[in-house]
Amino acid sequence: MRALVLEERLKLSLRDIELPQAVGPRDVKIAIHTVGVCGSDVHYYTHGRIGPFIVEEPMVLGHEASGTVVEIGAEVKGLKVGDRVCMEPGIPDLSSRASKLGLYNVDPSVRFWATPPVHGCLTPFVVFPEAFTFKLPDNVSFAEGAMVEPFAVGMQAASKAKIAPGDTALVIGSGPIGIMVALAALAGGCSRVYISDHSAAKLEIAGRYDGIEPIKLPEQSVGEVIAAGTDGWGVDIVFEAAGARSAYDGIFGFLRPGGAVVLVGMPVEPVAIDIVSAQAKEARIETIFRYANVYDRAIALISSGKVNLKPLVTGVYPFEESIAAFERAASADPHDVKLQILMG
Amino acid sequence: MRALVLEERLKLSLRDIELPQAVGPRDVKIAIHTVGVCGSDVHYYTHGRIGPFIVEEPMVLGHEASGTVVEIGAEVKGLKVGDRVCMEPGIPDLSSRASKLGLYNVDPSVRFWATPPVHGCLTPFVVFPEAFTFKLPDNVSFAEGAMVEPFAVGMQAASKAKIAPGDTALVIGSGPIGIMVALAALAGGCSRVYISDHSAAKLEIAGRYDGIEPIKLPEQSVGEVIAAGTDGWGVDIVFEAAGARSAYDGIFGFLRPGGAVVLVGMPVEPVAIDIVSAQAKEARIETIFRYANVYDRAIALISSGKVNLKPLVTGVYPFEESIAAFERAASADPHDVKLQILMG
Amino acid sequence: MRALVLEERLKLSLRDIELPQAVGPRDVKIAIHTVGVCGSDVHYYTHGRIGPFIVEEPMVLGHEASGTVVEIGAEVKGLKVGDRVCMEPGIPDLSSRASKLGLYNVDPSVRFWATPPVHGCLTPFVVFPEAFTFKLPDNVSFAEGAMVEPFAVGMQAASKAKIAPGDTALVIGSGPIGIMVALAALAGGCSRVYISDHSAAKLEIAGRYDGIEPIKLPEQSVGEVIAAGTDGWGVDIVFEAAGARSAYDGIFGFLRPGGAVVLVGMPVEPVAIDIVSAQAKEARIETIFRYANVYDRAIALISSGKVNLKPLVTGVYPFEESIAAFERAASADPHDVKLQILMG
Amino acid sequence: MRALVLEERLKLSLRDIELPQAVGPRDVKIAIHTVGVCGSDVHYYTHGRIGPFIVEEPMVLGHEASGTVVEIGAEVKGLKVGDRVCMEPGIPDLSSRASKLGLYNVDPSVRFWATPPVHGCLTPFVVFPEAFTFKLPDNVSFAEGAMVEPFAVGMQAASKAKIAPGDTALVIGSGPIGIMVALAALAGGCSRVYISDHSAAKLEIAGRYDGIEPIKLPEQSVGEVIAAGTDGWGVDIVFEAAGARSAYDGIFGFLRPGGAVVLVGMPVEPVAIDIVSAQAKEARIETIFRYANVYDRAIALISSGKVNLKPLVTGVYPFEESIAAFERAASADPHDVKLQILMG
Repeated sequence: MRALVLEERLKLSLRDIELPQAVGPRDVKIAIHTVGVCGSDVHYYTHGRIGPFIVEEPMVLGHEASGTVVEIGAEVKGLKVGDRVCMEPGIPDLSSRASKLGLYNVDPSVRFWATPPVHGCLTPFVVFPEAFTFKLPDNVSFAEGAMVEPFAVGMQAASKAKIAPGDTALVIGSGPIGIMVALAALAGGCSRVYISDHSAAKLEIAGRYDGIEPIKLPEQSVGEVIAAGTDGWGVDIVFEAAGARSAYDGIFGFLRPGGAVVLVGMPVEPVAIDIVSAQAKEARIETIFRYANVYDRAIALISSGKVNLKPLVTGVYPFEESIAAFERAASADPHDVKLQILMG
Repeated sequence: MRALVLEERLKLSLRDIELPQAVGPRDVKIAIHTVGVCGSDVHYYTHGRIGPFIVEEPMVLGHEASGTVVEIGAEVKGLKVGDRVCMEPGIPDLSSRASKLGLYNVDPSVRFWATPPVHGCLTPFVVFPEAFTFKLPDNVSFAEGAMVEPFAVGMQAASKAKIAPGDTALVIGSGPIGIMVALAALAGGCSRVYISDHSAAKLEIAGRYDGIEPIKLPEQSVGEVIAAGTDGWGVDIVFEAAGARSAYDGIFGFLRPGGAVVLVGMPVEPVAIDIVSAQAKEARIETIFRYANVYDRAIALISSGKVNLKPLVTGVYPFEESIAAFERAASADPHDVKLQILMG
Repeated sequence: MRALVLEERLKLSLRDIELPQAVGPRDVKIAIHTVGVCGSDVHYYTHGRIGPFIVEEPMVLGHEASGTVVEIGAEVKGLKVGDRVCMEPGIPDLSSRASKLGLYNVDPSVRFWATPPVHGCLTPFVVFPEAFTFKLPDNVSFAEGAMVEPFAVGMQAASKAKIAPGDTALVIGSGPIGIMVALAALAGGCSRVYISDHSAAKLEIAGRYDGIEPIKLPEQSVGEVIAAGTDGWGVDIVFEAAGARSAYDGIFGFLRPGGAVVLVGMPVEPVAIDIVSAQAKEARIETIFRYANVYDRAIALISSGKVNLKPLVTGVYPFEESIAAFERAASADPHDVKLQILMG
Repeated sequence: MRALVLEERLKLSLRDIELPQAVGPRDVKIAIHTVGVCGSDVHYYTHGRIGPFIVEEPMVLGHEASGTVVEIGAEVKGLKVGDRVCMEPGIPDLSSRASKLGLYNVDPSVRFWATPPVHGCLTPFVVFPEAFTFKLPDNVSFAEGAMVEPFAVGMQAASKAKIAPGDTALVIGSGPIGIMVALAALAGGCSRVYISDHSAAKLEIAGRYDGIEPIKLPEQSVGEVIAAGTDGWGVDIVFEAAGARSAYDGIFGFLRPGGAVVLVGMPVEPVAIDIVSAQAKEARIETIFRYANVYDRAIALISSGKVNLKPLVTGVYPFEESIAAFERAASADPHDVKLQILMG
């Protein structure tokens, strides 16, 4: 099977590679249509590792995908050939203690696309369990379907926040994930979402959405903008989506008494946290790891029109040019949000 | 002070009545601008009682109000003369056990406007505690300000539901409260809200909003529509806003396993409930009583544009014609949602 | 395999019956040691059905069991031959939408021991998935192991109640399940649990436990006892464990504002509920269906000594006399809590 | 009024000082019986400040008190002269936004006994609001009544943890607050609580309680003990009650996937936290600030016998020797848990 293979750090090839194609009784086989390029794919390309996950053998990249069902296993009941679908890329052991609790994303035995040593989906056909394959409504495009994965991260953050209707929020960081979080928070019940960043280009993209209010650093002070906008009370929720240590400076000062901070960004090193300032607000701090049980709700929000991801696709490449797509993604143009590859 | 007084059942007068005007240190005095006519006001007019609350002496009606601060007490810090405001009409004992828990709405000693023997606000000036008086942003009109009260009921229902982002919901009953609940649920995180009623006129009003899908009874079956729209899974939340015993028929059948039913309507008699069908879904059932701690969030949603209440005002009367407003409200025209009285 | 077979209503035999004995890769084979007689087993015996579940073919009874692992499948890692275990008797489809949410007990495809047409465990050997088989600590006896199942119902109720440390509770009904609920509520954080019943014998058993305060009906008034014991505030939680319509009389009157009612009993017919009295307290009503994810915590409480189930075994029968055990259970002696059958 | 006055850092006097004695309509006047010596009292004595709170003028110490009502205000209904009581020492503005939410402990305007510039209660008589004065049951002694305050910190931690019945927990730090947390967690639903410390003396005191399992550092490894005791799964809840930076080392490694960490200790400097290790478990982190709405539940647990605080009083002094009590407390003998002063 032809695939985009990360041979080793900084070395990509489009070549044939052997991938399992046997369709089990509860599996479906999918012709991939669109695959998004994710920051983690790019990070494996540029660094060869993410934390403890190290690329030690050639690995197919890609985990944000949509496509069409071309074959179904004997016991599949909820999908049929021809269905347009997207896939939740982590497969847990559903018998594990974490999975039985509904926390299958933190099951230590999850196998996740394009996380070493598991191959990803930048290849024409994949076999996948029905349980993690989701039908796309007619009004959700393949491009949107391939965006469900990064949007699901925002959905997980918004779910963990336990938004009360009309809450206000701050998102720290206006990169692709920050924008996903802001959109999920708005659709998920917030009345208003502030978003802060040092990049005017990134803020401009976020600020096009109704309800998102950009805060340009360092010209503006997050604390002052929030104090002015909330009568000094603070926001109900702060989402940390920058992953930088500096993002934590004064973070509990932005929060109202009893508010919540949701940690989405993944700082590479430990972060110094002022525990007493969190306690003075009796802050709740939530952390997320990928997502669980949000794909159906993510698709529902896209289909209903409450969330519009289309403007976030800033570049499209055919499969044969996917190395060029990765090079552009690696250049980190702040005007880019999401590049996609069409398998065609 | 001139006021709209319910002398006794079916007898209204516009006349002078003595009302306390002393402004305590933490009170504000408000020149009333707009007052909405609520179903409960009308019910006192037509029936002389609601449950245990009986009109035994002349009582000023009205509890959905907006206005302008004209005087402030010595210790008031958050409001000033000239502020445009709306008022949360129940004043609890803030030292009570329920209030300390944040549940001041179920404090048995609450004094609520136009609930016997407490006078309401259909009068040019009222004195009210700062703690329950809320500043209106510039882009929220007096008409909208006077709608915060009924919308707060919807907000309380949506808050208790604990909506997860993208949830689907059914609202049973498309009267004024049903519509408020549907709007709060949508703004509060639902992807889609079904609403059922026997009245085509009422459904037509609800159906003008994006995201609200009317179900016309008896031509359509709620169960069938929901099964078709949710792949047989059921909605995440059912809001009962009809208050009729028939509304409970098969109510747990519309729900997904683990879903929630929120009881908003107040049936006058006990309702037969099939406990086992609730248990088979392990349904959570929430009940609401007015609202607590939602005014600020309600105003935020109106101000941000996520909730548009303006189309729901279907008639406006000057104060001097307020008896006519009540007569029209008592006629229960299904095309009417909210009548308002301008104090002028 | 020899087994206790319910041939049809009122007809039991101890005879050979064909039961699957193939051990799959993630299964274990267990030599059954002790099986408790449950009210539902007895109900199938005396009535031939429970709601929609009808005994149409001979069915092996029994679902409260402990035993010893005698064989393990190739992929089993958490158990080994010789382990003493108890079994959670419902096997869901772990790939289902409900199971992925952690709500596997309300997965419609659950297969539950001794619920038609699924055979139970009153037979010397059973094959069962490792995922629903739990190792017993050395200090937990087989008798206690076979009590984990009914205690799990109490644990599910106590979990759904969301007990805050030191809450007070009322359990309506002092039958075996009522006692299990009371013990789980006490161990689960309540300071005190009232339990009401018409049977002095049943109350006497419950009242032997520290922290459980019996209320004898009709001599005592639940409302008066609770008002006196809580300064008129009401209990934080009411557990309904009688399953009788009369148990619902005035139920919300026993509750504090903002309290919770957990419905454990399963009334055969709809129950008239005064919705307005629930709303006046803004009561939360939870329902339970069997249990999910409580076996490990139930065993931990038994092992730690916080819960003592031993006094509740009021009769023990050898397997060959299990029909006599069922006849005694069917006689509903109020002094009996739990009868057990020893296979060995 | 005679009182124990902290004149300045390291200088205590027993002398007369003017204290307000006017009894407002909703106040009660209390003859103080017993006052506990708290670590924060001692810290003001030895350091003259705690964070931003600086002793700039003479201040009466003491905030853990019990006594007897000797006078009541005109509107007091729930207490009468002669009632034995204990007091919740922080008085918020009940009209504040935080208080209305039920979060009165994080109301910035709270006035708290013996927190500069507010005088404490080490004086024969105090006047206090009825709303924060709690009647002691007959079987709760004055000594226990004066322990409700530190136990309330444990109760707040246990409440925020949202313990599910049968959860396991680890408490880091076996000082007075660590022990209070462990007792609250056990009474609040945990099956077992591990507690770790470097002091054998402190662990010995904690380990006398059933259900508390000491871990002696550095001889024992917390990670190994927990892995062995939980089959490698981890504890459901970690309470950090040491307040030392070292206490955070590997803290998320002790936790099960989806578990919670409750931060009780107040480290004087920021702590380096490995965010990614928290995310890998999708840990929830709760922080506490004193307590709210737990006094009634704390007293209920003491009265019911589920919590026994009596063994924790390790020294008693008459009022006239209270300076000696503070000197002993300042010496930090690890065999001491709580010293109390009798007003006599």
